[in-house]
Amino acid sequence: MKVSELGEFGLIDRLAEMVNSTRGEQGSNLIIGIGDDTAAWQCDGAVQLATVDSLVEDVHFSLITASWEEVGWKSLAVNLSDIAAMGGQPEYALVSLGLPGDTDVEDVTSLYQGMISLAGEFQVRIVGGNIVSAPQLVINVTVFGSAISRDSLLTRSAACTGEKVAVTGPLGAAAAGVEMLGKGQKFEPQVTAALRKALLRPVPRVPEGQLLVENGVKAAIDISDGLIADLQHICQASRVGARIEADLVPVAPAVKSSFGERALELALTGGEDYELLFTASTGYMEKISKTFSCPIYVIGEVISDDKRRVQVVDSSGNPVSLSGKGWDHFRVERGRR
Amino acid sequence: MKVSELGEFGLIDRLAEMVNSTRGEQGSNLIIGIGDDTAAWQCDGAVQLATVDSLVEDVHFSLITASWEEVGWKSLAVNLSDIAAMGGQPEYALVSLGLPGDTDVEDVTSLYQGMISLAGEFQVRIVGGNIVSAPQLVINVTVFGSAISRDSLLTRSAACTGEKVAVTGPLGAAAAGVEMLGKGQKFEPQVTAALRKALLRPVPRVPEGQLLVENGVKAAIDISDGLIADLQHICQASRVGARIEADLVPVAPAVKSSFGERALELALTGGEDYELLFTASTGYMEKISKTFSCPIYVIGEVISDDKRRVQVVDSSGNPVSLSGKGWDHFRVERGRR
Repeated sequence: MKVSELGEFGLIDRLAEMVNSTRGEQGSNLIIGIGDDTAAWQCDGAVQLATVDSLVEDVHFSLITASWEEVGWKSLAVNLSDIAAMGGQPEYALVSLGLPGDTDVEDVTSLYQGMISLAGEFQVRIVGGNIVSAPQLVINVTVFGSAISRDSLLTRSAACTGEKVAVTGPLGAAAAGVEMLGKGQKFEPQVTAALRKALLRPVPRVPEGQLLVENGVKAAIDISDGLIADLQHICQASRVGARIEADLVPVAPAVKSSFGERALELALTGGEDYELLFTASTGYMEKISKTFSCPIYVIGEVISDDKRRVQVVDSSGNPVSLSGKGWDHFRVERGRR
Repeated sequence: MKVSELGEFGLIDRLAEMVNSTRGEQGSNLIIGIGDDTAAWQCDGAVQLATVDSLVEDVHFSLITASWEEVGWKSLAVNLSDIAAMGGQPEYALVSLGLPGDTDVEDVTSLYQGMISLAGEFQVRIVGGNIVSAPQLVINVTVFGSAISRDSLLTRSAACTGEKVAVTGPLGAAAAGVEMLGKGQKFEPQVTAALRKALLRPVPRVPEGQLLVENGVKAAIDISDGLIADLQHICQASRVGARIEADLVPVAPAVKSSFGERALELALTGGEDYELLFTASTGYMEKISKTFSCPIYVIGEVISDDKRRVQVVDSSGNPVSLSGKGWDHFRVERGRR
């Protein structure tokens, strides 16, 4: 059945039923979910976090290479990752869909299934949204989370000179996935699967963000625009510079094996890996390494620099030159619009 | 300058500057605004409200007939109206824009100017968002508000048999504005201005929603889909029926003078008026009439009905038949996609 046959309200009813059937035991603070003019929940004196991201068909994904379920998963994941980057706990989501009228209802329910699967892993509830007609699929997800206090937030502006810079996992696989799917490249099955998963089913680092807070970390960001671009955001906000040692940057094994010489560049400039990038003193880094279930990779240090630059150097301290700088939605010269 | 020349981050910086320069004295609870992974604010034990709406170019508005500033105003207004319909106080907004790369930066700043003007009238702060590339303009606004307690919320599900049904103002002007702009109809200048204002610069009934709460009202909705369709939402959620007397429905004067016989139909089924529709006992209605600065129009009553129907009758109690039923984003037969 097409969305235009079922109608806006019929579709909302069907999606609400899907969402409500998976509610489980969570969310005793929720007062009103889907079905009224707004969602409503009780605040318990905590800090409220809110973030939004839009995914546009043929800009951020293609339904030729990604399934509706994968697109659903990813559209929620990118927002949960923002909450993770603040060290918060994601709680509620609003989903606003723009859809062509001839969209199959089943595809929309698959999209929701993808979101619901990921939401379930992090005890997040979809509590509202809206659906409008649009010439192509546009998915807008807003996620709300909480933090214990304003002192327990990870921000971009808290990096200090002398701290080390680290990431929570290997990089480059999502960008390699973009290239693989876009160019129809063929690799070994496990490589293909790894790149596809990195791009379309990223797992936001929610517990890791909270562990960073517990271990005294103050400055973090999630890697959505690319390692260098996101470190640049930290440097701008914190009024510092940073020096990264290229040899220390962890490159995802599937990228190393399939993209050869370009692997490092993908790890440095490719976006959408959704690992956390953070800064902390050497002492804290050691403490964190012992607490974390995933490995922590120290890749460089925060330095004093009025120009707030990110330098990439080799093991001898010589600058490494790169062709790209990260994701910008309107810089068409990189051909990734 | 085009958006693609300035780039995503340059554009965000410029918009952040606009937003921050108009901050004023409000929002001492705000911890983090534009510029980090999420916005953050302190909750004071209140109820948090959240709502989202998307406006898509050539579906919800045309840039041939509406200015960028008007589109900005309206995209925030429809969300503030949802907070008003819950009796809440709007506080923060996230704005997610989808834009073609060849959009003029000045147009985007005009769009923001429209939002900032309205935000200023209701002490709302734009605290974040994102910008992505899209084939046409898509504006997604999420608004957060607060209410004192869960008992002080207006909901769709609280209408009771025997209560009166009322609206906060005359209806039909926004739908008449859609027709006027769509068909290029010419009217007297003051009629044209009134219809245009109703459609493109609606003023959400924020203080009125809060006054309804203070006066003991429990059930309300804002008229976005149309009087009948929105009353139907209340009936569905409250498991009641409703009977409206057509002669009591206030039709906007500009619609009466320009749309003749069709005026009543526009008032009953046209959407986007953003007046509040609510139910209350006769005693409460009298009390509210005395408190309100705007007139209250009692138009019918809540009745017992297992089928949860909305009936429209004339002064003799005979049914009035209508061709349309309200706005549905995918029901193309009304030609309003």
